Amino acid sequence: MIGQSGIAVKNVVRADAASVAELAKYGVATIHEAMGRVGLLAPYMRPIYAGAKVCGTAVTIFAHPGDNWMLHVAAEMLRDGDVAVLGTSCDNTDGMFGDLLATSFRARGALGLVIDAGCRDAAELRDMGFPVWSKAVHAKGTVKATVGSVNTPIICAGALVHPGDVVIADDDGVVIVPKSRAARVAAAAGQREAKEAATRKRLAAGELGLDVYGMREALAKAGLKYFADEAAYEEECRK
Amino acid sequence: MIGQSGIAVKNVVRADAASVAELAKYGVATIHEAMGRVGLLAPYMRPIYAGAKVCGTAVTIFAHPGDNWMLHVAAEMLRDGDVAVLGTSCDNTDGMFGDLLATSFRARGALGLVIDAGCRDAAELRDMGFPVWSKAVHAKGTVKATVGSVNTPIICAGALVHPGDVVIADDDGVVIVPKSRAARVAAAAGQREAKEAATRKRLAAGELGLDVYGMREALAKAGLKYFADEAAYEEECRK
Amino acid sequence: MIGQSGIAVKNVVRADAASVAELAKYGVATIHEAMGRVGLLAPYMRPIYAGAKVCGTAVTIFAHPGDNWMLHVAAEMLRDGDVAVLGTSCDNTDGMFGDLLATSFRARGALGLVIDAGCRDAAELRDMGFPVWSKAVHAKGTVKATVGSVNTPIICAGALVHPGDVVIADDDGVVIVPKSRAARVAAAAGQREAKEAATRKRLAAGELGLDVYGMREALAKAGLKYFADEAAYEEECRK
Amino acid sequence: MIGQSGIAVKNVVRADAASVAELAKYGVATIHEAMGRVGLLAPYMRPIYAGAKVCGTAVTIFAHPGDNWMLHVAAEMLRDGDVAVLGTSCDNTDGMFGDLLATSFRARGALGLVIDAGCRDAAELRDMGFPVWSKAVHAKGTVKATVGSVNTPIICAGALVHPGDVVIADDDGVVIVPKSRAARVAAAAGQREAKEAATRKRLAAGELGLDVYGMREALAKAGLKYFADEAAYEEECRK
Amino acid sequence: MIGQSGIAVKNVVRADAASVAELAKYGVATIHEAMGRVGLLAPYMRPIYAGAKVCGTAVTIFAHPGDNWMLHVAAEMLRDGDVAVLGTSCDNTDGMFGDLLATSFRARGALGLVIDAGCRDAAELRDMGFPVWSKAVHAKGTVKATVGSVNTPIICAGALVHPGDVVIADDDGVVIVPKSRAARVAAAAGQREAKEAATRKRLAAGELGLDVYGMREALAKAGLKYFADEAAYEEECRK
Amino acid sequence: MIGQSGIAVKNVVRADAASVAELAKYGVATIHEAMGRVGLLAPYMRPIYAGAKVCGTAVTIFAHPGDNWMLHVAAEMLRDGDVAVLGTSCDNTDGMFGDLLATSFRARGALGLVIDAGCRDAAELRDMGFPVWSKAVHAKGTVKATVGSVNTPIICAGALVHPGDVVIADDDGVVIVPKSRAARVAAAAGQREAKEAATRKRLAAGELGLDVYGMREALAKAGLKYFADEAAYEEECRK
Repeated sequence: MIGQSGIAVKNVVRADAASVAELAKYGVATIHEAMGRVGLLAPYMRPIYAGAKVCGTAVTIFAHPGDNWMLHVAAEMLRDGDVAVLGTSCDNTDGMFGDLLATSFRARGALGLVIDAGCRDAAELRDMGFPVWSKAVHAKGTVKATVGSVNTPIICAGALVHPGDVVIADDDGVVIVPKSRAARVAAAAGQREAKEAATRKRLAAGELGLDVYGMREALAKAGLKYFADEAAYEEECRK
Repeated sequence: MIGQSGIAVKNVVRADAASVAELAKYGVATIHEAMGRVGLLAPYMRPIYAGAKVCGTAVTIFAHPGDNWMLHVAAEMLRDGDVAVLGTSCDNTDGMFGDLLATSFRARGALGLVIDAGCRDAAELRDMGFPVWSKAVHAKGTVKATVGSVNTPIICAGALVHPGDVVIADDDGVVIVPKSRAARVAAAAGQREAKEAATRKRLAAGELGLDVYGMREALAKAGLKYFADEAAYEEECRK
Repeated sequence: MIGQSGIAVKNVVRADAASVAELAKYGVATIHEAMGRVGLLAPYMRPIYAGAKVCGTAVTIFAHPGDNWMLHVAAEMLRDGDVAVLGTSCDNTDGMFGDLLATSFRARGALGLVIDAGCRDAAELRDMGFPVWSKAVHAKGTVKATVGSVNTPIICAGALVHPGDVVIADDDGVVIVPKSRAARVAAAAGQREAKEAATRKRLAAGELGLDVYGMREALAKAGLKYFADEAAYEEECRK
Repeated sequence: MIGQSGIAVKNVVRADAASVAELAKYGVATIHEAMGRVGLLAPYMRPIYAGAKVCGTAVTIFAHPGDNWMLHVAAEMLRDGDVAVLGTSCDNTDGMFGDLLATSFRARGALGLVIDAGCRDAAELRDMGFPVWSKAVHAKGTVKATVGSVNTPIICAGALVHPGDVVIADDDGVVIVPKSRAARVAAAAGQREAKEAATRKRLAAGELGLDVYGMREALAKAGLKYFADEAAYEEECRK
Repeated sequence: MIGQSGIAVKNVVRADAASVAELAKYGVATIHEAMGRVGLLAPYMRPIYAGAKVCGTAVTIFAHPGDNWMLHVAAEMLRDGDVAVLGTSCDNTDGMFGDLLATSFRARGALGLVIDAGCRDAAELRDMGFPVWSKAVHAKGTVKATVGSVNTPIICAGALVHPGDVVIADDDGVVIVPKSRAARVAAAAGQREAKEAATRKRLAAGELGLDVYGMREALAKAGLKYFADEAAYEEECRK
Repeated sequence: MIGQSGIAVKNVVRADAASVAELAKYGVATIHEAMGRVGLLAPYMRPIYAGAKVCGTAVTIFAHPGDNWMLHVAAEMLRDGDVAVLGTSCDNTDGMFGDLLATSFRARGALGLVIDAGCRDAAELRDMGFPVWSKAVHAKGTVKATVGSVNTPIICAGALVHPGDVVIADDDGVVIVPKSRAARVAAAAGQREAKEAATRKRLAAGELGLDVYGMREALAKAGLKYFADEAAYEEECRK
């Protein structure tokens, strides 16, 4: 059950490496669209430095507010190419994660962290190039008193995450691709990107989206009326 | 009426080019002060990258939350030197605008976007140097189902914006100068800046604002009492 | 009394220079931990540019919302190595502080500002290298009509600050060290840093925090159960 | 210009009494719909007690945060059937209005207050039956130091309000009807209410909105697929 | 997949009636504790009137912001004893639900609504005694343009909800009990309540929780030190 | 030091009973004004039911987020006429306090609770008539794992509170009167109330605050200009 404490699962099935490699080519916005506009974490999840980008498989962590014990438990489960994803049982901005844990996570092969709470040592993490998406940056320290879980399903910033799912994060936020859909979503993202490249050229040349996408008729049907200028519009208003 | 849907006005009177060019020399804080401390958008409107700055004439957009159809309609109205300004009918952080629309807007001559909602493709927009001031950066995609309006008066982040008004935006936020006042405000901003330059020199030399602005008497009248040290103050407290 | 208006104390006892110099070597997170996890300002206090860092002695300012008069009064009290710290009587994001005041503060020897309100001229402050930690960046100007106090105890972003206390601020937030504890806290911070350096090496070599800190027994006692894989966990769930 | 200070207009044209009386029969939601879904203030504007309702003509007030001087100026402009509406130049929750001003407003004929800031003496106002819609209830007192304006156009909680416009407020929030549209909107609200009464009967009898409004075909066209049960849906997911 | 659109499942397995009846005897806090402190919706979900309470089986709705089409689709799936639960794809406070839909829902047997968005007609709903837990009360109307889903798993205010789960809501918020655990949780809630009744008596008689729960030793071990009075504590501080 | 953990002080000096009895006659707004507009807690502190009012002496509690252990420790320190006041080390909305603790607190003589976190069992507390001012109402349970302090100085919702200070709370919020000032503040509140009663009569009779307080000259000096009607004002605007 979501939010159950006291569980640590050692080995989980991860999304296949080929799909992860393919998804790594695309941005969060493209993948979210390719999947049918689902899977995004809430907009308050922001990278601690601009330009950060990561794509890997989720090791999930459920932790209690102000308590970072489970991050140490999670370190042991991390493998090359993983991204740690932490959800909590309530709103919290304490700095659960800093440069020591980042050193440990990196040594275990982790690519980054997505944490629905705070992190600290932001300058050191930037210098290390260890990307974190968090709700806050705050020096507030935490205790190690209450157990949560590792590698059970969690809710992180409004999204359901299973261990082994693909996590893609960049300047636009964080998206989760269920492991069973990774291949299909990667393919759809590729198609979308190809199509967008063609559209981009036409738009850059000055063509309008109205014509590229053929929207004029639908707009008229939906009730949009054009006026030559402000005088014409004001006349309409007076009617 | 503010918030009316279904209207697209093709040609609007824009602030005169000379005034716009003059206003472009000053920052948002200076112009806001020169106008009598009015015209600012709410503080949650932030540039998607530091150092962005824009000054142009407004093409206004009224859109519904989660629906970016009107941005395509607006593209056709954009001319060289315009800044698109979008207001919505309710709080929303969806990523209504991304690099494809930015490509189109730039091709049409637009200088940037001010949007009371979210934008996405933040990394690409930064690379393109296309500045956006928004309420959020989020990958969340939008539909094209409900018409709003283009080039009607809107409320954007608490400010009233008419089409053709001057929009100035920088790291300090966004200010709107009504087109009928553009020349007067530009002149006042110039005078303010000149005066501030003189003051800056005196302050840099160690003079106090208390003396530069002659505040000591007014402070005494308003009841400010000086104490030599903490002991003197504590003695007063015990009275 | 906290929040009393009309008081300006000229000379205050500052933390000793040696302790301040020692504290300047450490980050906010380290100092906060060394002091027993106390003294932090709320997480909404953020630097206006990444990488800013400051350590100095507090000149405290109590001001009313939308009124920056007391910042001018404070300028006269500032000495080399001071950091101005401003608290207000209610929530406010107006831009009370800009490049003119920064010019004056720097000429008086101040190292930076911590303000529980807004600041403006963010681009100029970044260019000057004058660091500010604030609640908002906003161009909104202020009046000079109501007196507050300078160098009385204040509450700033949830923390109690006495004049002369040590203020340390970096990317992780702001921490206040009471002047009477500066030497002890500096010593404790040094010890903590030394210990962390040793731990960092072990973690970088791939050792787990679970072993470095000897947590395994405590975790088992607290009820953490390990499962070999998801199948084993699911079996447990069905019980 | 919106936000201009120093203006007090004594006599303003108010919406005609017959239209106001007619609008008073309907709730905020009905009127907002009848006007084409426009004119609402932001959702943070809440009545200080449940069941409050008011419909009257606006006397507008522009005030600075933490300063309630203009409320006294406005008292003189109030007439029978007016509702005072106050906008400010920035976010503020100070208690600008309490039972003394309510006593004065009521003596002048005012029906209530809509204030984009705080109010206080909430228990006394409830006992008096003087309704207030505000952003906060807080005891925080204010000064009388800076002039704003009375009876100029303002923005209040995101809506543009002209003096003399109709203000309707109830448990669902606050809506503004421009005086020039009062008669038309009252008529449309009446028609809407009549239609809803008929629909309510059918729904109460167990008919579905799908049939009452004839939505089934449009839903199918928009892509909605029905599944007999969860097994059928899961089979679809596996495809 | 969570957030998938275009699905409407007609018949879903609901929690057994006996367990629902048993759970109806307890409050949200008790059930949440009995389940191991999980299953709560976020604290921003509040009843529209004090004293509302409901316990029933979930019909789940996934809707897009500003679009209430799916509520009409859901009406057809509602049966006696159901509670509708609506999640959206992003933050939204529009009034998606009002007295007409409440009339329809009640006619179909529904007991109430839990909606991660706004509702309106709050006074009418209170008069009808139709309880709603929502994020906001706001008159803002919605369109019927984009399909979502009914009776698929959703995330509502941070909690995962499957169709047929038990929904309990009162003044303390909303908790979800998975249908497979309803019987066990009801039993545990009963035991907890019995135990609390005994404790309540002892506490009412003046016994201390410290003794009733036997906490004194653990507190001492955790480092709590008692001081006879403030003088003794201050002496300790000076050490 | 503020925020120090591990301290429980048994006997503290409380404000004298006569002053507390006198202060109990006045509301929060009056007392806050009488003290010079200081001492208020932040506006997010709200009573869990309308009409609650309390005046008593503070027993202070410092607790960690999600941990209500210290409330049990505090119960032992409570005496007749006390009000418990709890501050935490970070933002938190968990329901730390419910009907069992209220039963215990009442048995010990406490009048109510002010808590910068959440409380639960809101319906039961209302039925008991045990008033609570909190940041949230939420069923979320808490652990008993980390010690805080009792009867040390705390910061609660932005205000400094010493044990024994007077706490007054009503529908307008919460104000703290330092025990050393209780007598003086009570006297000032009485004078203020007497003066307001006289003013209220004059305002009720239709006199204007402008005349009662003699504001007309100051307003003119501050730049307020009167216009007979909108036409006169518009003429001014055109200048």
